[in-house]
Parts: sequence; structure tokens; C-alpha cells
Amino acid sequence: MSYYNQIAGKRLGRIEALSDGVFAIAMTILVFDLKDPLEAAAQSDTQLFTALLGLAPKFLSYLLSFMMLGIFWTGQSTQFHYIEKYDRNLSWITLFFLLFISLLPFSTGVLSNHITNRTAVGLYWLNILAPGILLYLHWWYAAKHDCLSLPKAERAAVDKAIKSRVVTAQSLYAFGALLCWVSTYLSIGFIILVQLNYAFAPFGSKPKK
Amino acid sequence: MSYYNQIAGKRLGRIEALSDGVFAIAMTILVFDLKDPLEAAAQSDTQLFTALLGLAPKFLSYLLSFMMLGIFWTGQSTQFHYIEKYDRNLSWITLFFLLFISLLPFSTGVLSNHITNRTAVGLYWLNILAPGILLYLHWWYAAKHDCLSLPKAERAAVDKAIKSRVVTAQSLYAFGALLCWVSTYLSIGFIILVQLNYAFAPFGSKPKK
Amino acid sequence: MSYYNQIAGKRLGRIEALSDGVFAIAMTILVFDLKDPLEAAAQSDTQLFTALLGLAPKFLSYLLSFMMLGIFWTGQSTQFHYIEKYDRNLSWITLFFLLFISLLPFSTGVLSNHITNRTAVGLYWLNILAPGILLYLHWWYAAKHDCLSLPKAERAAVDKAIKSRVVTAQSLYAFGALLCWVSTYLSIGFIILVQLNYAFAPFGSKPKK
Amino acid sequence: MSYYNQIAGKRLGRIEALSDGVFAIAMTILVFDLKDPLEAAAQSDTQLFTALLGLAPKFLSYLLSFMMLGIFWTGQSTQFHYIEKYDRNLSWITLFFLLFISLLPFSTGVLSNHITNRTAVGLYWLNILAPGILLYLHWWYAAKHDCLSLPKAERAAVDKAIKSRVVTAQSLYAFGALLCWVSTYLSIGFIILVQLNYAFAPFGSKPKK
Repeated sequence: MSYYNQIAGKRLGRIEALSDGVFAIAMTILVFDLKDPLEAAAQSDTQLFTALLGLAPKFLSYLLSFMMLGIFWTGQSTQFHYIEKYDRNLSWITLFFLLFISLLPFSTGVLSNHITNRTAVGLYWLNILAPGILLYLHWWYAAKHDCLSLPKAERAAVDKAIKSRVVTAQSLYAFGALLCWVSTYLSIGFIILVQLNYAFAPFGSKPKK
Repeated sequence: MSYYNQIAGKRLGRIEALSDGVFAIAMTILVFDLKDPLEAAAQSDTQLFTALLGLAPKFLSYLLSFMMLGIFWTGQSTQFHYIEKYDRNLSWITLFFLLFISLLPFSTGVLSNHITNRTAVGLYWLNILAPGILLYLHWWYAAKHDCLSLPKAERAAVDKAIKSRVVTAQSLYAFGALLCWVSTYLSIGFIILVQLNYAFAPFGSKPKK
Repeated sequence: MSYYNQIAGKRLGRIEALSDGVFAIAMTILVFDLKDPLEAAAQSDTQLFTALLGLAPKFLSYLLSFMMLGIFWTGQSTQFHYIEKYDRNLSWITLFFLLFISLLPFSTGVLSNHITNRTAVGLYWLNILAPGILLYLHWWYAAKHDCLSLPKAERAAVDKAIKSRVVTAQSLYAFGALLCWVSTYLSIGFIILVQLNYAFAPFGSKPKK
Repeated sequence: MSYYNQIAGKRLGRIEALSDGVFAIAMTILVFDLKDPLEAAAQSDTQLFTALLGLAPKFLSYLLSFMMLGIFWTGQSTQFHYIEKYDRNLSWITLFFLLFISLLPFSTGVLSNHITNRTAVGLYWLNILAPGILLYLHWWYAAKHDCLSLPKAERAAVDKAIKSRVVTAQSLYAFGALLCWVSTYLSIGFIILVQLNYAFAPFGSKPKK
């Protein structure tokens, strides 16, 4: 058995392909929460328009979760940019990471149906905390077991950048989740602001490079 | 944070794999709108035949959206043919592009259920306008930040061909969407003609090369 | 426009990845037809067993369509083994091929719900005829436009093998479909036999090589 | 026909991409069993919390099947690490392997709805026995037909490790399934323990290497 464990899970291209598949599906099935609000045909333009506006909270959850998946995907693929070896422990860390990614459409559905409910926000938060921890563990394990390909000069900087990104993001998400004691809309709004900052900030800070 | 942004999103193969995944799923789940019109068994041949014919408008939406996805996929993969570097801004442009791709099955469902409704046509049009703008932005950003690999001789021609394709297609879609004030069937028919032209025209024009 | 058509659709890896994605999803969502026959819990062992046996016709359709997808997938990937260039006409042939692949879960559902109905068999047959024609066209076009990489010595043999496989298989499927005028079960049984022959025959004929 | 069979199914990258796609989708659609227990909005925090706790048995099935897919995926990708040639017989072994992988969400759903029912455990067990047999056959066939790339020194050890892993795992699953005559919860608990051992044991045994 221990020999099997030495030879298993080395195929780097496969784990990346599996990850891209899980992310692509999770991103796409989020849309199942957005159902045509007026299934029956022959409704007036205005009725359909009003009904679509009523989907706004569900669309908000959709945007929140799509960006969340985008942020986790970026985080994971950035790590793989530096990983040159893989083993079965890393495989299993990634498999558990993907487990939580594949659960996100469920938590999003619960949040989307109960957008004013603190339990729903708490469930959602647990679902983004867990992959954050696993992403950190993934990098830590890869660094510790010589699985990285990093020029010595960049090593410390990359290591710090990747770790502090996870810690900062998760701290902000946790703070956002706590805001649900004030208002769940405030929670979600705050987290979306954090996400937008991660997605767009670099456009402004480019010249500094 | 700014250092993280420099090292993130460089993995070209991953973003292409993610895109192919999202497109493949969006193409395949369009079929969920086509439900067996007579779920119960033991219906006569003629009844089933008539019921299937009644699905024609839904099949029309299916064809429309499948070709739309095919056109966007061709457009995106053509750009990647010339892209040799990637950064996180390009990643996020693509992630938002994929957000609208993953929404298309929803807009198609709404259109399919309300095929004579101008609001449905308007929603659908917004859903093809947005990825068009992002595709244009993707190319513009890649060109501006030296992410392309293009022989100097071809540079201007490729640049013009890619940009004018997006602008022309989107202008025709916008014109098609406006036709909904006359008839929504005219809108959809016109857009399908535009698509068929994009799919088949080259067969005719090949000898000119 | 004509210049755009010259530069579009060349990215061979992308069209293969998209195809694998569509096939993988079509194969997996076939399972949606197999629903738990006794949703409510607390049923006896025997009741569940009997209810599962009642799913047999749906499982038959599942097997039929999974093997059909496997056969088309094998056919397509065999062609790609010899294709070294790609253009946008080939892209569009493949996109329309994938359109029919993505429709197969729908036709399977109709067949599965109306397994004794000739219209359902006819619909299913059209859905396997169309991708067969497109697969033939794909090879014909690639051969005609110098997109293949084939040693001269093998050229004629490979060309004949690929073409005659499509023609033979489609003739047998058409004959099988016609058998529905006798019995739809005979139709489906015959087609499954043809498929099993394609899947297993080589095990027997290996020594001849 | 026999010549076609010689040229078909050689494209190694395609069968791996198809497999990753099927695994990724199967992993992700497991989540469809986890439905928001209180679809209606405006429920109290406590009600939602209690309802989510009631999902525990479904979450258990989810975890069971996700890990099962992870174990089969690891097993298959480990084999591919040593496979350098492919033919159509191997393709069809893999296609039938994927058929059972794609059925797992169905068996999981049945198990999840009837978690105290021995027939459900039996169905689930058949669904993990079959891909185990096919995985063993896949390796056996590849070894027999010179499709492997293995340094002579490692050949015997790798061969033994891969074969005995399948046999041991399947024996333990069979034993676990038999425990359903005592209690189905015991069955599932035992199998999850086996899985956790496969996922985590190596962390402990690393120093021995």
C-alpha cells in the first residue's frame, strides 16, 4: 500500500483538468437558481419586466458566487503556475478543495432563497472558509515537500504574496459574514465590494509595476 | 497585494480549459428547455408527432443559442491563437465574459417561454451584447499590453479583422433586436440569418483566397 | 470578413477540448432519465427492488445512448488522430456535429418515455443520422483541403476505413430503425447488437492483425 | 472493419480529457441531491438551521460518493501515468468504466433517499464493484499488450501495487456492503472509514519512504 501511495497522484495535467471541469460546471449550474419567473407564455412585456426585476436578489447571489468561484480559480491556478511535482497528498487536498467548490451552488441556492437569514449567510461563509483553508494547506504542503519550481530570488516574495492573499481575503470574508448581525444585505454587499476590489484594483495599480 | 496581482492569472492553458468547459456545459444544458412534451407513455404515434412539432419555437431558440455560443467560442479561440502571454486582468475579463456565456441558457429559456415578448428579446440582446463588448476589450487589452504574438506584417490586418468582426456582428444583432418592435419572430429570424451567414459564407468565398 | 475567416478556427486543441466537454456532459446527463422510482423513504427492500426492475426500459435507453455517444466519440477522435490543420469550416462542421450530440439526451428521454412508439424511434434515428453525415463531411472536407497528416502509403487504406465505417454503421442503424414497423423493441435490440459488435468484435479478431 | 479497429482509439490525450470531464460532472451533480430543505423564504434562523441538520444523511451520501469518485479518479490517473500507447479496446474498457462513473449520482440518489434500505446498499455496491473490475481489466490489458512505459526495475513493483490496491479496496467495499445485514449505517460508516484511510493514511506513513 505504501508503495502505491508513492506512485499515485503524480499526473499534474489531470488534476488541473479535473479542477477546470469542476469550476466550469459549478459556474454554469449557478444559473439553475435563476428560473424564468413567469413560466407561462403570453404575458405582457411589462409583467415580464417586473417579474425579471423581482429576480434581483437571486441575480445578486449569482454574481457573488460566480466571482467567488473566479477568485478561488485564480488562486488555485496561480499556485499551479509554480508547482512542478505532484503527489497523492496534494491530490487529496485538491479533491477536498473541489468538494467545497462543488458544494457552492447548493449554499448559493440556500442563500438565494433566504437572503435575509443569518443561518444562510453562516452556511455560505463556512463554504468559502473551507476551500480557503485547503488552498493555504495546498501551498504550504507543496512548499514543504519541494514540489515548487521557483527561482531562489523570487521564492520568499511569491510565498508571502500567496499566503497573505489567502489570509487577507478570508479575514475580510469573515468580517463580512459577521456583519450579518447588522444586516444580511450588508454582509453580501461588503463581500461583493471585497471581490470587486480583487477583480478590478490592479487596473488602477498597474503603472506601479 | 500588488505583487500577488503580478504573479496571478498567467496560466494560459487553464483559462482556455475553463472556457471550453463553460462553453461545453452551456451548449449542452440548452437542451433542458426541450422537454418531452408528452411525459406519459402509451400515446399514439400521431399524438407524439404533433406534440414534437409543437416544440418548434423552443427548438428555434435552441438553434439560435447554440449557434450564438459557437460564434462566441470561435471568436474567443481565434483571439487565443495570437495570445502568448496572459495576466490577471485578462483573466478577469475572460471570467466576466464567461459569466455572460453561463447566463445564456437562462435568457434562452426566458425567450423560449415568451417568444412573442419584446422584454424577452431585450434581455436576450443584452446577454449577447455584454460578451461582445468583453471580447472586444479582451483583444484591445491584450494588444495594448504586448500579450500578442503576431508577425509585424500581419499585425494590422489581424487587428482590424478581429475588431471589425465584433463591431459588425454586434451592430447586426442590435438591428435584429430592434426589429422586435415589428415582430419578435422577425428579430429572431434575422439574427439566425446573420448567424448562418457567419457559419456558411466562407464555403462560398473560399476560392477568393 | 473574408480575412477573418482565414484566421479563425485554427486552434486544434480547443475544438478537441470543447468536443470532449460536450461528450462528457451528454454522457453524464443521460442519467437524469433514471430517477429514483420511489422517492419517499421507508420502503421495504422488496418494494425498492421491484421498482428498480421497473426502470429496466429506461436503463436500456441509457445503455443505448451511452454506447452511441462512445461510438461517435471514438469516430471523431480517430479522425483527429490524422488531422494536423484546422480551419473555420471544419470548426463549424464540428459545432453542428456537437449540436446533435447535445440533443441526444433529449431524444433519449423521448425514446425512454415512449419506448413502444415509432415516432420516438424515428426521432432518435434522425438524431444519430445527422452526426453520422457530419462526421463523414468532416473527414471529406479535411481530406480535400489538405488538413490531414497521413503517410502516403496508408492514405488510401485509412481513408477507406474511416469512410466505410460511417457508411456501414449508418446503414445498419437505418435498417434497425426500419425494424420499428415490426417492433420498437426489435429496433432497439438490433441497434444495441450492432453497437456491442463495434465495441467488442476486435477482442476476437485481434490475432488476425 | 478490422483495419478501422487498428487505427481507432489511439488518442491518449482525448480519453483522459473525456474521463476528467465525466468525473468532474459526476462530482458536481452529486450536489443536486442536496436541495434547500425550506424553499420558501422568510423562515426563522432556527428553522433553517434545524432543516439543514436534517440533511445530514444526504450530506453523508454526498461525502461517500465524492470520495469514491476521488478514489476511482486517482486510481485511473495513476494507471495513465504509465500508459504510453492506447488502442480501441482500451478505449472501450474506459468508456464502460465511465458509464458506471456516470451512473454513480443515480445510485447515490437512491441510497440517499433510502439510507436504511439494503437494496439501496446493494445497488450502490454493484455500482462501485463494476468500475473496480474494469479498472483492473484496464491495467491487465495494457500490461499484456505492451502499452505501458515502465523501467524494468520498477515493473513488478508497480504492477503489484496497482493490482493489489484494486483487490484490497474492492474486498473491503464488499465486506462493508455485507455489513448492511447488521445495519446499513454500519455499512456506510465502514466504507467511509476505508475511504478516509485511503485519503489520509499516507500523511502518517510518509517518513518511511
